[in-house]
Amino acid sequence: MSTFGHYFRVTTYVPIASAGESHGKSVSCIIDNCPPNLALTEADIQPQLNWHHLGTPILLTVPNEDQRPKDYGDKTIDLYPRPSHADWTYLEKYGVKASSGGGRSSARETIARVAAGAVAEKWLREAYNIDIVAFVTSVGNIKLFDDTDGMSSDPAFLSLAKTIIKAKVDEFLPVRCPDDAASRRIEDRIAELRDKNDSTGGSVTCIIRNAPVGLGEPCFDKLEALLAHAMLSIPAVKAFEIGSGFHGAEMLGSVHNDPFVAAPALDAAAEKTGIPRSRLQTKTNHSGGIQGGISNGMPIFFKVAFKPPATISQDQTTALYDASGEGVLTAKGRHDPCVVPRAVPIVEGMAALVIADAIMAQHARQAGKGLALKK
Amino acid sequence: MSTFGHYFRVTTYVPIASAGESHGKSVSCIIDNCPPNLALTEADIQPQLNWHHLGTPILLTVPNEDQRPKDYGDKTIDLYPRPSHADWTYLEKYGVKASSGGGRSSARETIARVAAGAVAEKWLREAYNIDIVAFVTSVGNIKLFDDTDGMSSDPAFLSLAKTIIKAKVDEFLPVRCPDDAASRRIEDRIAELRDKNDSTGGSVTCIIRNAPVGLGEPCFDKLEALLAHAMLSIPAVKAFEIGSGFHGAEMLGSVHNDPFVAAPALDAAAEKTGIPRSRLQTKTNHSGGIQGGISNGMPIFFKVAFKPPATISQDQTTALYDASGEGVLTAKGRHDPCVVPRAVPIVEGMAALVIADAIMAQHARQAGKGLALKK
Amino acid sequence: MSTFGHYFRVTTYVPIASAGESHGKSVSCIIDNCPPNLALTEADIQPQLNWHHLGTPILLTVPNEDQRPKDYGDKTIDLYPRPSHADWTYLEKYGVKASSGGGRSSARETIARVAAGAVAEKWLREAYNIDIVAFVTSVGNIKLFDDTDGMSSDPAFLSLAKTIIKAKVDEFLPVRCPDDAASRRIEDRIAELRDKNDSTGGSVTCIIRNAPVGLGEPCFDKLEALLAHAMLSIPAVKAFEIGSGFHGAEMLGSVHNDPFVAAPALDAAAEKTGIPRSRLQTKTNHSGGIQGGISNGMPIFFKVAFKPPATISQDQTTALYDASGEGVLTAKGRHDPCVVPRAVPIVEGMAALVIADAIMAQHARQAGKGLALKK
Amino acid sequence: MSTFGHYFRVTTYVPIASAGESHGKSVSCIIDNCPPNLALTEADIQPQLNWHHLGTPILLTVPNEDQRPKDYGDKTIDLYPRPSHADWTYLEKYGVKASSGGGRSSARETIARVAAGAVAEKWLREAYNIDIVAFVTSVGNIKLFDDTDGMSSDPAFLSLAKTIIKAKVDEFLPVRCPDDAASRRIEDRIAELRDKNDSTGGSVTCIIRNAPVGLGEPCFDKLEALLAHAMLSIPAVKAFEIGSGFHGAEMLGSVHNDPFVAAPALDAAAEKTGIPRSRLQTKTNHSGGIQGGISNGMPIFFKVAFKPPATISQDQTTALYDASGEGVLTAKGRHDPCVVPRAVPIVEGMAALVIADAIMAQHARQAGKGLALKK
Repeated sequence: MSTFGHYFRVTTYVPIASAGESHGKSVSCIIDNCPPNLALTEADIQPQLNWHHLGTPILLTVPNEDQRPKDYGDKTIDLYPRPSHADWTYLEKYGVKASSGGGRSSARETIARVAAGAVAEKWLREAYNIDIVAFVTSVGNIKLFDDTDGMSSDPAFLSLAKTIIKAKVDEFLPVRCPDDAASRRIEDRIAELRDKNDSTGGSVTCIIRNAPVGLGEPCFDKLEALLAHAMLSIPAVKAFEIGSGFHGAEMLGSVHNDPFVAAPALDAAAEKTGIPRSRLQTKTNHSGGIQGGISNGMPIFFKVAFKPPATISQDQTTALYDASGEGVLTAKGRHDPCVVPRAVPIVEGMAALVIADAIMAQHARQAGKGLALKK
Repeated sequence: MSTFGHYFRVTTYVPIASAGESHGKSVSCIIDNCPPNLALTEADIQPQLNWHHLGTPILLTVPNEDQRPKDYGDKTIDLYPRPSHADWTYLEKYGVKASSGGGRSSARETIARVAAGAVAEKWLREAYNIDIVAFVTSVGNIKLFDDTDGMSSDPAFLSLAKTIIKAKVDEFLPVRCPDDAASRRIEDRIAELRDKNDSTGGSVTCIIRNAPVGLGEPCFDKLEALLAHAMLSIPAVKAFEIGSGFHGAEMLGSVHNDPFVAAPALDAAAEKTGIPRSRLQTKTNHSGGIQGGISNGMPIFFKVAFKPPATISQDQTTALYDASGEGVLTAKGRHDPCVVPRAVPIVEGMAALVIADAIMAQHARQAGKGLALKK
Repeated sequence: MSTFGHYFRVTTYVPIASAGESHGKSVSCIIDNCPPNLALTEADIQPQLNWHHLGTPILLTVPNEDQRPKDYGDKTIDLYPRPSHADWTYLEKYGVKASSGGGRSSARETIARVAAGAVAEKWLREAYNIDIVAFVTSVGNIKLFDDTDGMSSDPAFLSLAKTIIKAKVDEFLPVRCPDDAASRRIEDRIAELRDKNDSTGGSVTCIIRNAPVGLGEPCFDKLEALLAHAMLSIPAVKAFEIGSGFHGAEMLGSVHNDPFVAAPALDAAAEKTGIPRSRLQTKTNHSGGIQGGISNGMPIFFKVAFKPPATISQDQTTALYDASGEGVLTAKGRHDPCVVPRAVPIVEGMAALVIADAIMAQHARQAGKGLALKK
Repeated sequence: MSTFGHYFRVTTYVPIASAGESHGKSVSCIIDNCPPNLALTEADIQPQLNWHHLGTPILLTVPNEDQRPKDYGDKTIDLYPRPSHADWTYLEKYGVKASSGGGRSSARETIARVAAGAVAEKWLREAYNIDIVAFVTSVGNIKLFDDTDGMSSDPAFLSLAKTIIKAKVDEFLPVRCPDDAASRRIEDRIAELRDKNDSTGGSVTCIIRNAPVGLGEPCFDKLEALLAHAMLSIPAVKAFEIGSGFHGAEMLGSVHNDPFVAAPALDAAAEKTGIPRSRLQTKTNHSGGIQGGISNGMPIFFKVAFKPPATISQDQTTALYDASGEGVLTAKGRHDPCVVPRAVPIVEGMAALVIADAIMAQHARQAGKGLALKK
């Protein structure tokens, strides 16, 4: 399925490169059911994007600027499915060999997610004052936080989580890790791997502030399940944890339980949305903002792990497509050793799609209370 | 939404307990689109289950044997939302206070998942020779494997993954951790926590062998995204990782890439299914059996983390529902300090639902090849 | 799929009778996403119904009181697929012969629709003051209205459409045709067909008053498309028309166009719902309350045709299941020659499900305006 | 929702015209889950269409050649919602006034349906030898057949239904009514209405031959319900009938029942598909090829009624948008008095989408039998 979401619904299209093709190269995305009257400008998405919006649906088209020929020499890419790419599984699934498209098309497809996510984020910010901020928390074994005890028990993380904004993260471009020392070490590490023709993975952490209470469904569509689905649908993601995460499995219940306390008065920014606030909040937040599958008004935070890029500038021994033997898939050109910093807006975008969809779902359920429809 | 799956589609119903109720106590589950002519017997599910099957759909009803009154004394449960339960978020979402139902109804709802999963597993085993086996890999800080380098780099795990079967796991009841030493330590740890009126979490690892090549969709519904969705929809789950998982983020691409090799001949058991096999397999399996979102025929394995149960036999200080102050939610009775062993069949059941649905999806896509419909 | 609706979502289960069975006989229905806090009482549905409601979802179970043995003698029903029943198509679709279940299970399945529809209707009435009333407009060639020029051009129909209520229709039980003369003629006709061991069809017309403006989607899910889907899903329905219907195809555009006029002030009953009303209405209503796929606030009306019941008390010559020859399917017992009056609440129920779903969909879209969620 | 189908899934995008716009004018359509390896050529769709296909999904883009300015003078179109257009309902639904877009955008959106339908038809023809042919059966009160007794009782219709092919229908362009006399009368009638600045409706009948047995679901998604949904989603459609249709309501059961007979041997054309055929067929076909919601292998036929176009070249008295009074919406330019002939490929396209989706659904269900997936 190329469609994500039930209410705020995104369908993406990415052409698969093939020889001699001359048209249809742009990445497209249709957003259905976007709440009308959202004052989108091109700056909300990105300048080079063509889009069209008046009512619904919205079509976004991103011209494909990068149409380089295949990066593998000697045609070995036609003989060998690339290790840990989708070459082999696509062929087996569709009966179509699309060797040059597997890897790159994946990366290109994420452009559509970022574009659609930008529309959702704009709506969430304007209508609900919701902030979604992601940043790099590790590259290889270089980590922003000591994660021995998990995010939800780490004062350094919890402190950053309260204040971090996108503009701050962008100050740390190109690595998007909001710490001077860590960010320098990451830059060095990436440079070193580039020299070694190798690649590495890393992790991105995302925080959602001001999400309304009541999002998510109690059974199969718990909010954390929707977020996990969204995150594991991003290319190269191998793991997801929310709140206390894997470390939560080692904690005592008496420590993990988040006691309730009365909520403080709304701040001015939140107040202007006119949304009534929850009376309670929790003292700790090992739950990561979700209890029983439903948001509780506390910040939602989760971490996502990315494997190293499969495309490396090294020769690799592997089997031929026809299984008749093994040989060497030769490397050509230089490749980016780490895509984690570029994954930050993708994580934010997918998170925004999940929250937008969940808000619309909850709004549908409240149809009987709101009585806001005209007769 | 109380529905899971698009093709093999499960809808569950769990009554929420309320005062003076006298009927409707059983947990129910409707399975839609189950492939017909599956020879289900009661033993396939569990003896105490009422079910009905002839064609489709299938209705499963599990009588609720456990209707104990509320386990909290002094009515404090009516005054305080229980920490880290769904009491507060349900009230905010639905406007309905269901304090005694939040936690237990969650646990009861999983009965329906196990029942539906058993139907799916039976079909997968008979038609595709698919094995799905889950087991406990940790309770608190007691771990079956040293997970420093992740599952996919651990020879002990990879060796167990080839051979472990359900019957072996069940030999290690009540803890379902298939190792004598680890299982004894876990039993001791649970006993100790029971004495301390506290609780702990743990992790469950699941292996799917013989899944066909080609399952999962390349974009939003990658197979790992569907599995993550399913797992994070299980109550108390906080994290999911597949293949190399979080450790994959620290690996080098040259190590993480799984080279292809020619596949060996099919064994007899697999051959009897008559399913043509993939020509290739991979030498290592850091991908966890999925590449580009699509199964590659290798074993699929993933780990799931459970937080400690929120219900503990200790008094807890927390806020009143009306936020007018704090007080003590008093404990009553004794509670199970660790639910991880009981989560094993739930993980297996949800995995079976995902794989069944993905097989049906892929079968739909192959409609043009198979031409198996009558005219 | 046994599920109807995207938001107000109904899943039904009907057991198929088989020899020696002893359990699972009741018809069940799960309603998901019903707006919470609807004060349902048993009287809202029907006294003999077991149901359970606190929050969501809702489970309705209708005990099956009618478990007569098969109505065909001589076992000919095991040899011949019954003409115009589902016997043959079920066998071909599922590979399962369910000869005694085809017809009756269809009828029994509609009980679940009526029950779920009653819940939706109650909500629509309480929250939106919506009235849904259906009645018999023809049986065989006996017609309540002269339909030469279509419903939307018939003053007699338009006049009745303004005032008819369910209680009035029920005064004309058993035929539910709200006219003394027509209703007597229909009773006579049915009696005559009973004597002749034959059956007949008829039509049901349904009116939806006070539906809010803005329901339905402009493209594939136009409101009339959703209604047509719902109506053609009722067993034995062969046709659907809305507004001017088939007669509209013969009209001139200058006559068919519905000019706008200013809407009068709300009446007291409508006002109490607090729903702002549309400023405009139309002078004529050939559109049947829907323009461009979207409700315009005028009464919605449509007609549904039912074929004669396939089960008749006559011998029928037909082919053997194995196509080896023809023979006589012998009749046994007496059968109801006309089911149209009993279809009235089914039509109302399905209409209510469509409108409830469409209101929730529109409410989801207005999430950005209403800002009614708590933060 | 701008998406149609669950398996063979089509999402369309049509820009709504607005002042000063300079891009995004083409109509687009994404087809998801199209069976791979379909050898599409541009000639399969239409020469002027840009499309891209390799594997899945498929993107079709139709440049918009017709960007005439608004056809109403004096700006009265800014003051009055046009009678029986979507102007008013769009404004009420979305809060956006798109007066020039309502009518034309509807017509433009159907281009995407035709394009997507052409892809589905190609697949159905190649893989299943399925023929889908529609033609005009009436314009105003000029009718191809005497429909007193309904399609399924009319020998002239049944005879034509066996042999009519698209090429034959196209011989009768521009009116697509395959009869010399009727087609001349229709041309005259349309010319006459053009002179009178008025418009008229009509009906289209569609026949689907060689549809496999077993399509459609027994409950809510009966095949006739899916077809009705598809047809009523076409702009201007007011009615749908299948098989005996409205006339079926007047028939006796003893006449309406379709007796089974042994099926003849397959003809050569059908045989080459290699699809096993049904052993039985029916002597008559009042069911219209569907019994119990499931196709029985007989020809499926249905009729669709279109209302007259709302855009006429006459002044119309109607209310102002703000309900402050009435006035005259002035006509400008000349408009097509009858769109029914142009609806023929839209009806065929939507029918193809329904059948393709139903075949994929049935194929998914047969996953357990076919065992065609690789392991």
